[in-house]
Amino acid sequence: MERLPGFRDFYPEPVPQGGLWSADTRRYIFEKWRAVARSYGFREYDGPPLEPLDLFTTKSGEEIIAQLYNFTDKGGRDVALRPEMTPTLARMVAAHERNYRKPIKWFALPQLFRYERQQKGRLREHFQLNADLIGETDTAADAELIALLIDCLRTFGLTDKDFVIRLSSRSAWRDFFMAHRGDPGREYEFYQVIDKLEREEPESNTEKLQALGFALAEIQAFIGEAKPTPELAGMLENLAARDLAGYAKVDYGVIRGLAYYTGVVFEAFDRTGEFRAIAGGGRYDNLVKLISGGKADLPALGFGMGDVVLRELLQARGLLPQMGMGLDAFCLIQDEALRPESLKLVQGLRSAGLAVDYPLTPAKPDKQFKRALELKPAYTLALERPPGEALRARVKNLRTRQEVMLQPEEIAGYVRANQPSEPQP
Amino acid sequence: MERLPGFRDFYPEPVPQGGLWSADTRRYIFEKWRAVARSYGFREYDGPPLEPLDLFTTKSGEEIIAQLYNFTDKGGRDVALRPEMTPTLARMVAAHERNYRKPIKWFALPQLFRYERQQKGRLREHFQLNADLIGETDTAADAELIALLIDCLRTFGLTDKDFVIRLSSRSAWRDFFMAHRGDPGREYEFYQVIDKLEREEPESNTEKLQALGFALAEIQAFIGEAKPTPELAGMLENLAARDLAGYAKVDYGVIRGLAYYTGVVFEAFDRTGEFRAIAGGGRYDNLVKLISGGKADLPALGFGMGDVVLRELLQARGLLPQMGMGLDAFCLIQDEALRPESLKLVQGLRSAGLAVDYPLTPAKPDKQFKRALELKPAYTLALERPPGEALRARVKNLRTRQEVMLQPEEIAGYVRANQPSEPQP
Repeated sequence: MERLPGFRDFYPEPVPQGGLWSADTRRYIFEKWRAVARSYGFREYDGPPLEPLDLFTTKSGEEIIAQLYNFTDKGGRDVALRPEMTPTLARMVAAHERNYRKPIKWFALPQLFRYERQQKGRLREHFQLNADLIGETDTAADAELIALLIDCLRTFGLTDKDFVIRLSSRSAWRDFFMAHRGDPGREYEFYQVIDKLEREEPESNTEKLQALGFALAEIQAFIGEAKPTPELAGMLENLAARDLAGYAKVDYGVIRGLAYYTGVVFEAFDRTGEFRAIAGGGRYDNLVKLISGGKADLPALGFGMGDVVLRELLQARGLLPQMGMGLDAFCLIQDEALRPESLKLVQGLRSAGLAVDYPLTPAKPDKQFKRALELKPAYTLALERPPGEALRARVKNLRTRQEVMLQPEEIAGYVRANQPSEPQP
Repeated sequence: MERLPGFRDFYPEPVPQGGLWSADTRRYIFEKWRAVARSYGFREYDGPPLEPLDLFTTKSGEEIIAQLYNFTDKGGRDVALRPEMTPTLARMVAAHERNYRKPIKWFALPQLFRYERQQKGRLREHFQLNADLIGETDTAADAELIALLIDCLRTFGLTDKDFVIRLSSRSAWRDFFMAHRGDPGREYEFYQVIDKLEREEPESNTEKLQALGFALAEIQAFIGEAKPTPELAGMLENLAARDLAGYAKVDYGVIRGLAYYTGVVFEAFDRTGEFRAIAGGGRYDNLVKLISGGKADLPALGFGMGDVVLRELLQARGLLPQMGMGLDAFCLIQDEALRPESLKLVQGLRSAGLAVDYPLTPAKPDKQFKRALELKPAYTLALERPPGEALRARVKNLRTRQEVMLQPEEIAGYVRANQPSEPQP
């Protein structure tokens, strides 16, 4: 029986061939994301992966249904697997915003689902870091969020040689649109054309823009000039104070496709342009009000960073560390008479927080040692009781090949003091 | 807009009133489970939350559909949200078992979904620690798994005064059934009656057992005697070597409802009997073969421990720690002229791995300090530049009220050396 197309199995390392995914790498990425978000004072939240269908159509219109895993549950409710986290966040914040001081800084690591037409390698689920800052209109909030985004990439070893945040602004585009006498009823249509500018042929762009009363050349001039709005200038100054200016640039070629953005928008790209956007987001000051049916009205901004493109980029840059199981010790049982004492030793070491394994059943010493080597522990241990003497342990460092004899109760302290086994990133 | 009934929102602490759940407590439980499983040499895996419907009906029959979130996807596939993890595990292991040495020791923390008739407080999703040991028939594997289960509860501060593992055996019950000339065609029906023995009235039990040719008294005598089979005796001996004997007892009152168990079965209960089972599992030597359509034939055993009953138990025993955000420092900005230097300081501390927050926008000192106190950081920081002097930082320990003056670059080291802010469990 096979898993569904577009879904992933996550295996422990070493991951078998054939497009499967590493659960260890997933945990590595999640832990890094969590640590950086927490260092910024962001708090973790989560909602249900299954939500009322309305929650998503309210925000994105009925068109989104074509891309959803939606169905009617046994109680007759129209439900859908979440395709994004922002509606859930807006729902949760609106329900209990009075319980939390503003600004609210929250993050989540949801799995998201989209029924997309199956293409080679195209997934129907992915995980995303979602970070949102709610309740602050000042661009200081936008800068704080961009700094978080930058550090969520730097934490993996990526530098300003590897990626850049392209900063743009819906307000700048709106001013441009109005100044050039755009038809207010077709503003969003105009943004959609700008959003696709880099992916479409010039002829097609020219034609679509003309239909809206614009010349491609004037659009290109506006993008080329890249003149920061006061809000963007403030953000760049803020980032410069943090020594992060080299990670961001004004680039009006980015506008983001979604309708609900209201101010600053941005996308993170690798510098070589090999990959799709690594992350994207912006300000959505009206969405909480919309989703909550007017119950709460809070300015907000956020970004999402998926696990798939990030993984591809880290892989390509050699920044995904080799993941082992991080076993501290393997306890050999060379004398079956000492199995009870060995079990007691293993139990004690595990209780002390060390990762320890041992042969479940009797096996020849060379087979045991081979098994130990496969598991790549830092140490092997073996209890011995020479005639007339006390129990002692032979403790071997598998990297240095050094061997010491210890009392069983000394081992935990010794292994702790002489960590770690494998090079950790 | 409301979330679906039976589903949970997870909020950061302090969690608002009204049956909502703490994301911090969830992470606390997950991290403890992970740490213990890893200390036992178990590796993490995961599969998709959405699977082909067949995967679940193959194992549990068509009856299970009534309890599933199942639907037909846009590609015409019959799919279901996973109600349990074992079928996914069996599928994954069968597909790539040659890649992994035996025994395979794997764990996962899946979210599971069941469409149950809505009852007060009854959930339609929960998280579970699933730990499985695959490829070993010896009861040493059963003992290893029970030891893991015990430590997954002890890690929260629960002791043998709080819980016990009730060990039983399908083989013991099969022997009893055969020795008393049970009808081999009704063996599973018999197990179902035994499974419900404690929850049903004696009259009903008597009647059902009589229909199968048994007297309630002989069943009660068998349970009362609690004579360990050789396999259970071996397990108890193994657990005794680990000083864990006090956590488990033979109790044939447990048999587990599911059809596929083949050997040892067990459940963890709190000693007072206030709560539903905390965990349960057993040996299922034929299931991998069944699920894989004969592709792989491996003996296996495992257990599941849900997050809901565990939380209730820890809460009742006062073992859920107060969860703060663990902020190391809050940087006051009392002089707006020093905002750029303050941003640089905050950035540096965060890069050093500390959790630091600051006022995004200008505010009066007393309002800033109030905000700081709400966030419960270990320290407040404030940069100062007296006329003609170098920049320096006032660093205040909010617990001891001690204040020191430091160079900005000394702060990270100082805060690290004088951790932690809040009492951590």
